[in-house]
Amino acid sequence: MPVNLKSPIQSELYPIEGIRLGVAEAGIRKANRKDLTVIVLDEGASVAGVFTQNRFCAAPVQICREHLTAAGAIRALLINTGNANAGTGEQGLQRARQSCSALAQALSVAPHQVLPFSTGVIMEPLPVDRIVAGLPAALADLCADNWLRAAEAIMTTDTVAKAFGVQLRLGGKLVSVTGISKGAGMIRPNMATMLGFLATDACIGQDLLSTLAGELAEGSFNRVTVDGDTSTNDSFVVVATNKVGHSPIDSWDSADGRALKTAMLDVSRQLAQAIVRDGEGATKFITVNVEGGRTTEECRRVAYAIAHSPLVKTAFFASDPNLGRILAAVGYAGITDLEQTVIDLYLDDVLVAVRGGRNPAYREEDGQRVMKQSEITVRVVLGRGDAHDTVWTCDLSHDYVTINADYRS
Amino acid sequence: MPVNLKSPIQSELYPIEGIRLGVAEAGIRKANRKDLTVIVLDEGASVAGVFTQNRFCAAPVQICREHLTAAGAIRALLINTGNANAGTGEQGLQRARQSCSALAQALSVAPHQVLPFSTGVIMEPLPVDRIVAGLPAALADLCADNWLRAAEAIMTTDTVAKAFGVQLRLGGKLVSVTGISKGAGMIRPNMATMLGFLATDACIGQDLLSTLAGELAEGSFNRVTVDGDTSTNDSFVVVATNKVGHSPIDSWDSADGRALKTAMLDVSRQLAQAIVRDGEGATKFITVNVEGGRTTEECRRVAYAIAHSPLVKTAFFASDPNLGRILAAVGYAGITDLEQTVIDLYLDDVLVAVRGGRNPAYREEDGQRVMKQSEITVRVVLGRGDAHDTVWTCDLSHDYVTINADYRS
Repeated sequence: MPVNLKSPIQSELYPIEGIRLGVAEAGIRKANRKDLTVIVLDEGASVAGVFTQNRFCAAPVQICREHLTAAGAIRALLINTGNANAGTGEQGLQRARQSCSALAQALSVAPHQVLPFSTGVIMEPLPVDRIVAGLPAALADLCADNWLRAAEAIMTTDTVAKAFGVQLRLGGKLVSVTGISKGAGMIRPNMATMLGFLATDACIGQDLLSTLAGELAEGSFNRVTVDGDTSTNDSFVVVATNKVGHSPIDSWDSADGRALKTAMLDVSRQLAQAIVRDGEGATKFITVNVEGGRTTEECRRVAYAIAHSPLVKTAFFASDPNLGRILAAVGYAGITDLEQTVIDLYLDDVLVAVRGGRNPAYREEDGQRVMKQSEITVRVVLGRGDAHDTVWTCDLSHDYVTINADYRS
Repeated sequence: MPVNLKSPIQSELYPIEGIRLGVAEAGIRKANRKDLTVIVLDEGASVAGVFTQNRFCAAPVQICREHLTAAGAIRALLINTGNANAGTGEQGLQRARQSCSALAQALSVAPHQVLPFSTGVIMEPLPVDRIVAGLPAALADLCADNWLRAAEAIMTTDTVAKAFGVQLRLGGKLVSVTGISKGAGMIRPNMATMLGFLATDACIGQDLLSTLAGELAEGSFNRVTVDGDTSTNDSFVVVATNKVGHSPIDSWDSADGRALKTAMLDVSRQLAQAIVRDGEGATKFITVNVEGGRTTEECRRVAYAIAHSPLVKTAFFASDPNLGRILAAVGYAGITDLEQTVIDLYLDDVLVAVRGGRNPAYREEDGQRVMKQSEITVRVVLGRGDAHDTVWTCDLSHDYVTINADYRS
C-alpha cells in the first residue's frame, strides 16, 4: 500500500508541446502488459541526463552517456520494462544499439539520436526481437496526451503510476512542466533514480539544462532511499522542447529562471518522493532532517545511516518508539569526532533525547503517538555547525521481504 | 532457527584455571530469566579488550576503556542483559560506576578493577538497584564450570547459547581456551561484537595480549554482519590467567605462540560465526569471499556491500538465484575505477558470471541447487590485484522483521 499517493494520478498532467508518447505490449517478460514506451521529441529540444554511479551500470546507461555526448540532437527515448539489460556484457551493448537503430530507422533519424532505457531483471539477455517487433504499435499510439499511459508502462514492482505536472507563467506565456518516474526497490539513487523523465516546453539552452539536470537530481532523486541498493540502471533525463515563445531562460538567477527552476525542482521532488511512498512494502513515509553539522556531507551521512538502518526501519513499521536505535545509527555514521553529549533528537515536535541522553520530560506515549502516523519527521541536531541535509525514506515491512523473495517468480 | 548450530552446546567447554563464573536472576527487564553474570579473575591475569567504534558508545564501554588504562589489574567482569545503558547520558555513567563499586566492595578490590558490560534496550535508565540486589546470588553461584550458564545468561534475542572451547599443549603442558559470545541483531561489529569473552589459562604478557585482542577481533568478530547496524555496546575481552606453568609466550612467531594464537583465533571465529548462524531470522549462512582486489580494504568494501544488500539477502532467503543483485552490489561498493568487464562471480563451484556478463554455460538449475543449501559461498573475482578478504553473513527473512518489530513488546 503506497503511503498517501493518489491513484491513478497524483496531479493534473499537462501535454508538453513538442513531445508525443506511445506505448505497447511487447511481451518482453510477461504477456498482456504495457512494457514498451517511445517518447518522440520535435527538432530543437534540449536534453540532459544524469545516470547511476554504479560501476556495474547497465548497457543502456553506457549508450545514453555515449549518445548524449555525440553530435546530433536527441529525438527519441526508448524504454522497456521486464529486463534491465545489466550484467549482460558485450552482447547487452549490441542489443541496446540494435533497438536504437530500429527506432531511428522508423523515425528517419540517426541511431545516436535515440536514448535507450531498460528496467527489470538483471543479468538476463535482452529480448531485442520483441522490442523491435513492438515498435510499430508504440509508434501508432503516439500522442501528446499519453503521459499517464507512459507512467504506467514503465512500472515494475511499482503499485502506482508516478506522474506530476505544474504550469506557470514566464513573461506572460503559459509554460508546462510534466514528469514521470518509476521505482520501488533497489532504490538509493546516486546521481538519479531508477527512471525519471521530466519535460517542459519552456526555452532553456543546452548548457543551462545540463547543469540543471544535476541540480534537480541532487535536490530530489539523490535524496531518497528505499533499501540502500543503488541500481545499475538509474537514469534521470530532463527535456526542454523550447516551444513556448517566452524570452529564453539565460540564467537561473533571473525571476523567470528562479520560477521555472523552482517548478521543475518541485515536480522532481514529488516524483522522487512518490518512489519512496510506493517503496516496496512501505507503510510509512519518513523525512530525516539532520542539522547542526559541520558540512552538508556529514549531515547526509548521518541521515542515510538512519534511513538505511534495518533496525530503525522495522521500528517504524511496528510503530514502536524504540528510538535508541536512531541514536545508534547516528553513532556509526562514520563521523569520527562526533560528541554524543551535544546531540538532540526529535520525532516531529517531540524532544526525545537531549545532550545524548533520554529527555527527562519525554513520555513513551508521546513517541508512540508520532510513530503511529503515516508521515513522520526525524530531526537530529548534531550541535557542531550550521549545515543541514534531508533524506526521504520508508519503513521495512514483511511485504518488502515478500516482494523481494518472490520478484522473479 | 539457527543455521547449523548445535544446542545447547557447540563444543566441549573447558574450565579456565583462575576464572570462576556466577549468574543470577536479577529481574532487570523480565522476571525469571538469568540476566546477571559475574566473572571473577584470580590475581595475575592479563586482560585486554576492544570496543565499538560507534560514537554513541554505551556508558559501560566508556568505563571499560577507562578501567583498562587505569593502574590496577582487572579482577572481575560484571555483565547484565535487558538494558544496554546506552543513550543514557551522565546518569548512565554514574549508574555503571555504582554497579562496579558494589561488586568491587563485595570482592575487596578497587572499583576500577571491575569491567562493566550491558546489553539490551537502548535509551532506558539502567535499573542499578536490581543489579546490586542481584550480586549476592551471582557471587554465591561462582564456580569454574559455569561457562555454559554464563553464555545463557548473556543472551538477548539469541536463540542458542554460544560457547566454544579447545585444548592444546604448550611445551608439554595442557592449556585450555574457552569463549562465549552473544548477539543476533544490531550486528556489524566494528572492533568487536556485541559481547564476546575469550579466556585461556596460558601465560601471555599484557603487551602481547593487548595487540592480540585486536588481531583476533579483525579475523573474527570484525568480519561478520547480520544487519549492518554497529551496536553501541560491542565489546570483546580476552583474558589470559597465566596459570599453566609453560614457558610464557614471548612472541607470536614462536611455535607455541603460533599454536596458541591459531587456537584462540579458531575459537573467536566460531563465536563470531555463531552470531551470524543465530542471526535474527537467519535461515542461511553465507560466506562472501572477494579476491583479486588491489587492497584488502577494497575487497572488504565489496564483501560488505554484498552482505548488507537487502535485495541479495532476500534472494538468499527465497533460494532464488537472482544473482544480478550481487553484481549490482559489487558495482555500488564505492570502488570508483572498477571495470565490470573483468569481474567473475561464483556461487560455490558454479561460475555464474564471466567478464561482467552472464556465463553462457550457466544454467539456472545449477544456481538453484546451490541457493537451496543452508551454507553458501559467494566468490567474487575482481581481476585487478592479489588481495582478498572474507565476510560472513546471513539472509534477510520475514522473521527478521517480526523479531525487530516486536523486540520491546
